[in-house]
Amino acid sequence: MDRVTGSVGLAGCEWLQYDYNPTLIAQDRPGSFTMWRYRELLPVDDGPVRYPVPIGGTPLLPAPALRQTMGMPHLWIKDETRNPTASNKDRATALVLEDGLRRRVDTITTASTGNAAVATAFGAAAAGIRAVIFVSTDCQPDKLTLMTQAGAWVFLVRAGYAAAVDLSRAAARTFGWLDRNTGANPFTIEAKKTVAFEIWEQLERRPPDVMIAPVGDGPTLVALDKGFAELVSCGLATRRPRLIGVQAEHCQPLVRAWLGTPAGPAELDPAATVADGIAVVRPAIGNAVLDAVRRGGGAMVAVSDNALLGAVATLAGRAGVGAEPAGAAALAGLEVAVEHGLADRAETVALLVTGREVKTNRATSRPDRTAIVETLDQVERALEQ
Amino acid sequence: MDRVTGSVGLAGCEWLQYDYNPTLIAQDRPGSFTMWRYRELLPVDDGPVRYPVPIGGTPLLPAPALRQTMGMPHLWIKDETRNPTASNKDRATALVLEDGLRRRVDTITTASTGNAAVATAFGAAAAGIRAVIFVSTDCQPDKLTLMTQAGAWVFLVRAGYAAAVDLSRAAARTFGWLDRNTGANPFTIEAKKTVAFEIWEQLERRPPDVMIAPVGDGPTLVALDKGFAELVSCGLATRRPRLIGVQAEHCQPLVRAWLGTPAGPAELDPAATVADGIAVVRPAIGNAVLDAVRRGGGAMVAVSDNALLGAVATLAGRAGVGAEPAGAAALAGLEVAVEHGLADRAETVALLVTGREVKTNRATSRPDRTAIVETLDQVERALEQ
Ligand SMILES: Cc1ncc(COP(=O)(O)O)c(C=O)c1O
Ligand SMILES: Cc1ncc(COP(=O)(O)O)c(C=O)c1O
Repeated sequence: MDRVTGSVGLAGCEWLQYDYNPTLIAQDRPGSFTMWRYRELLPVDDGPVRYPVPIGGTPLLPAPALRQTMGMPHLWIKDETRNPTASNKDRATALVLEDGLRRRVDTITTASTGNAAVATAFGAAAAGIRAVIFVSTDCQPDKLTLMTQAGAWVFLVRAGYAAAVDLSRAAARTFGWLDRNTGANPFTIEAKKTVAFEIWEQLERRPPDVMIAPVGDGPTLVALDKGFAELVSCGLATRRPRLIGVQAEHCQPLVRAWLGTPAGPAELDPAATVADGIAVVRPAIGNAVLDAVRRGGGAMVAVSDNALLGAVATLAGRAGVGAEPAGAAALAGLEVAVEHGLADRAETVALLVTGREVKTNRATSRPDRTAIVETLDQVERALEQ
Repeated sequence: MDRVTGSVGLAGCEWLQYDYNPTLIAQDRPGSFTMWRYRELLPVDDGPVRYPVPIGGTPLLPAPALRQTMGMPHLWIKDETRNPTASNKDRATALVLEDGLRRRVDTITTASTGNAAVATAFGAAAAGIRAVIFVSTDCQPDKLTLMTQAGAWVFLVRAGYAAAVDLSRAAARTFGWLDRNTGANPFTIEAKKTVAFEIWEQLERRPPDVMIAPVGDGPTLVALDKGFAELVSCGLATRRPRLIGVQAEHCQPLVRAWLGTPAGPAELDPAATVADGIAVVRPAIGNAVLDAVRRGGGAMVAVSDNALLGAVATLAGRAGVGAEPAGAAALAGLEVAVEHGLADRAETVALLVTGREVKTNRATSRPDRTAIVETLDQVERALEQ
């Protein structure tokens, strides 16, 4: 090795030596690539960014071994697991909190099936803002632990996720809190569209031919559509990619709507799939998803739990990317898409890997910050204690 | 908001509008800040980087809420959990694999108590190289699942971690595999020293006054020492920080050696602490750690399991950073250091948060790639099947 001039042993440890001089480290500042790069297209005014954690700027991986396995030389993985709580939810959280910090709001609220709540709890902790989360009483205990660990208040709602959304939104209106409910707050889409800008830049200012993403409530896919559409509006791209949305066979309301065939009960059973992150029976912005897919000439596809678990293993074993089943859905969807002629192996295809679950240490939870509630009054009383 | 020119409703979803034009996204290429920025000080020759996953370039967080809690206005968190498998082990893995890809080696091996093995398994998968891991039979089942999920071969050794290291090193010699054993391969220190370069650049080309890091086998802290020393050798810094190494009370061989008092059995009991990542009874490069701490005018401190769990909660709740107990040790150590006058609240102090455990999905494991072994012959036969 030319660079290494020698080696010295120091207390039982080998230290390589170089020809030390000041030019060995470049003078330019190391670039930080975050979603704020796109602030001219984000709803925040000028002035320093207040949110203290860098978000976005996630890698677009060439994944050579996976390309070989798939026989797809232009396959890419957009790895959103590199965000602070390991999912694309961190983008929406950061933009909503940036807005809140500028307006000096003291509390953020959201309902969630899981990942968005974890992102909100950790993001709010970083920003020094209180988080008040609403979840269904059957929310995973590990996720609850994560939320209270980060200091969030967590209200459990027996009537389920939809009721949790209603309570969270009512609380935001009544108490003047920041409303981060996905789909409801347009900032969640604004933030997530930066994924499209990044992919376009990472492909040397060209959109991919096909973009595949999991679909739960819808903002992830709809935001991709908006981002790619805005590049065209700006005159920076001449076309948008075909968007392929992926749902789990056991919970596929939008695939059924896309195909125009009614969904049976076995196709609307969120508890039955391993992909809990996308198991949404009534997607918040389902019509917008169908529009986005139609506009770009794409499609909606359903994948089995076996295919989802296979995709988790393939992402780990062929790309070194850890994902949860919902996070790996784009790869499972790719196989269906290729089989049905919706994507060609020679095309430039980008898979959005949306998330990996974060591990908890139960011992550091704060169970005193959770309560079962039905009304806003109960919420208010709990917070006063 | 000046930037937003309006809003349209699209299929039940609100789309903010802007004054679209090509100048809204900057012409410069988005900077990618990775450890290869420092390749003039790394043992790799020129030519394109082969390793396909960006590593390093992790944020140095100002953590405003934590600063307030601690009364330390110049406190920083170097967040190594932002690496692909959520620990600083990814740096060492990447440099060893980059070397292997250039030399066309087909297999990498390491022994490990956990995180280094997970990093090696995922990193090797990304690189398309086979990983052969050696662990003690009492290795955490979740970590085993992660390794086999990424396609690694995992050999379990009944005689424990030290015997696993011996087998892994012997296999590397006998079969010509890449040896990533921490401390043994000097590249592991070369890679981890880039953390020091990054912190120095992120502090506007100044070292912190005090740098605090957990100590298991030693390479993490020794690499910080080497990195800061090399900045002085290059004429880029005039001093190095005081290094404070942190161990768990239940397993503190180097704190005892530092203080010159013999360790009792309760202080050498790795199974007794929550900080399994740093529970090493005979650190691979312990003397080098003591030298590094002495040279910089630092110290070694021990922290209780309660303090470690408290640090996990404080990092989550006041900085939005998720860490495992070993990964949070620097914050626990800071409290001891301030109490004992080893660090002053007015100083610039950087905490190295080394890792967060990654969550597994058990269903995607490949149990056929694990075997209990005692000899190299058994390893060879298992791999032939
Ligand atoms: C891992 C993961 N992927 C995808 C999604 C789907 O995102 P959206 O609700 O924006 O459609 C979610 C939503 O929770 C998720 O957690
Ligand atoms: C989370 C974590 N922190 C710190 C360390 C200590 O690193 P070292 O062995 O380089 O001293 C380890 C080692 O496994 C670890 O897993």
